Amino acid sequence: MAPHQELKQRRREDYRYILDYRTRWADNDMYQHMNNSIYNFLYDAVVNAYLIEHCKLNPSSSPQHGVVVHSNNDYFASISFPAVAELALRVNKLGKTSVTYEVALFEKGVPEVRSVGEFIQVFVDRPTGRPAASGMSDEMRKGLERILVTTEPNSKL
Amino acid sequence: MAPHQELKQRRREDYRYILDYRTRWADNDMYQHMNNSIYNFLYDAVVNAYLIEHCKLNPSSSPQHGVVVHSNNDYFASISFPAVAELALRVNKLGKTSVTYEVALFEKGVPEVRSVGEFIQVFVDRPTGRPAASGMSDEMRKGLERILVTTEPNSKL
Amino acid sequence: MAPHQELKQRRREDYRYILDYRTRWADNDMYQHMNNSIYNFLYDAVVNAYLIEHCKLNPSSSPQHGVVVHSNNDYFASISFPAVAELALRVNKLGKTSVTYEVALFEKGVPEVRSVGEFIQVFVDRPTGRPAASGMSDEMRKGLERILVTTEPNSKL
Amino acid sequence: MAPHQELKQRRREDYRYILDYRTRWADNDMYQHMNNSIYNFLYDAVVNAYLIEHCKLNPSSSPQHGVVVHSNNDYFASISFPAVAELALRVNKLGKTSVTYEVALFEKGVPEVRSVGEFIQVFVDRPTGRPAASGMSDEMRKGLERILVTTEPNSKL
Repeated sequence: MAPHQELKQRRREDYRYILDYRTRWADNDMYQHMNNSIYNFLYDAVVNAYLIEHCKLNPSSSPQHGVVVHSNNDYFASISFPAVAELALRVNKLGKTSVTYEVALFEKGVPEVRSVGEFIQVFVDRPTGRPAASGMSDEMRKGLERILVTTEPNSKL
Repeated sequence: MAPHQELKQRRREDYRYILDYRTRWADNDMYQHMNNSIYNFLYDAVVNAYLIEHCKLNPSSSPQHGVVVHSNNDYFASISFPAVAELALRVNKLGKTSVTYEVALFEKGVPEVRSVGEFIQVFVDRPTGRPAASGMSDEMRKGLERILVTTEPNSKL
Repeated sequence: MAPHQELKQRRREDYRYILDYRTRWADNDMYQHMNNSIYNFLYDAVVNAYLIEHCKLNPSSSPQHGVVVHSNNDYFASISFPAVAELALRVNKLGKTSVTYEVALFEKGVPEVRSVGEFIQVFVDRPTGRPAASGMSDEMRKGLERILVTTEPNSKL
Repeated sequence: MAPHQELKQRRREDYRYILDYRTRWADNDMYQHMNNSIYNFLYDAVVNAYLIEHCKLNPSSSPQHGVVVHSNNDYFASISFPAVAELALRVNKLGKTSVTYEVALFEKGVPEVRSVGEFIQVFVDRPTGRPAASGMSDEMRKGLERILVTTEPNSKL
């Protein structure tokens, strides 16, 4: 992953796909900001929205689906209900059966990024739950390539 | 509450305040539709968004806040990630210290309502947690009156 | 449903199945108590735990599964993280394809009940999502009968 | 953080504080296992339970509280509702104002670990939200030292 200071400079134009997610009352915890666990819910949401809408994933019937094996996240500033979050997505690395996503959370109307995280999915065959021997499907790969960002140093991760 | 069959006929124009909420991956449960508990998160979200934006509620410092004492919900049809939900709000009854909200969940692009629920909040004084002796604040009452719907039979609830 | 005042008197011995659920940090909202929506998560959890462990439900393969069509809940007192909740379950009514559960939430070490709710599930055939024409399976019915409480006035609901 | 292969060998005795958390129905996602975001809810829960019960944290009134600035997690195997999770906690590093927790998730009755994650909290002064200039309170430090594990290679992190 890119160094902390580099990630903190991320802007919306560093990503290839962005969706708005309105925050919910219960996203805030006792410290009056969105709980750190909710970031992962939103990262998961934008990734799966992309997979369904642009990579032909059907979560209940596709022969393969992704399983998260690693995640990491850096939190730079907080966001609070009722703000609207913008979730920005790109792919940092694309392997035979695995993909490394980078997701950033912005707050509508605010240029600076709130958090940047990565998570790695391995595509598994549904019946066995084992990594797909033949690698991810062509449709999946084509969809993910469209948001692959390879020109930056951290793409060597 | 209005009878089940009447609620099932609700349309967006029966409400006074509507917000979009994009669904999240983890909102769906093993049956591939949004889990019934998530409806309440969304009802809570639209109510509190209205209170903050139109009734001057500051959740961390207002001298009063609402506590839910009753809720009920009728589910007519399901909704699934990655659909966008529209949460529609009105007030059905306004007492001295309590308010009965009606909230409906629609799916973007679909005329028929997915669910309609009510919940009752009692405004309590922050230091004591007891119902506010003098009733809810004027600002709160004025804000809630703006979305009060009194001309329908179920307003006699 | 039984009147509010009667429900408020519920004790653990009024139920037939009880499970402990430790509360989680993020269950609390900005008002420092468990958010009202979390009660539904816990009700749903104890019901489905019972269905899986005592009624042979397999959520991913059983030919029928339950869909919630109505819920209601009365909140008597709050509970806060890190308390342990006890979820108590019984069946109030058993129809051909539907079941009315009553669930109560207690706090470990406290005799008085925190909340009592009901929810109604209709068993549907998995392929169609329509109510099971032949009614719920025998295994399901037998399992639910074991926690049916019929001797109280509210069982006529 | 310790290498992936080393983390995969973690056992309950590598930790200093363990709590049971029963999984909930809605913790499972469409792939019939606990959603990856839920792990963070549980990590957050065991950390805050420890802070409240052993470090005198009062989330609504303590002059300092922790803010998460980084998290990472490795997932080795899945867990599904209605299993009971055991959350195991230790401190890997203790700075002047920050603490690095390591949390592992086990399944009751299963020796192998399901996931191991770290997260870093910085203690901030409540009024300003800025890192506490004088460092974390003595009570906090003493509580955290009791679960500090310093003899392993990864404690040099």
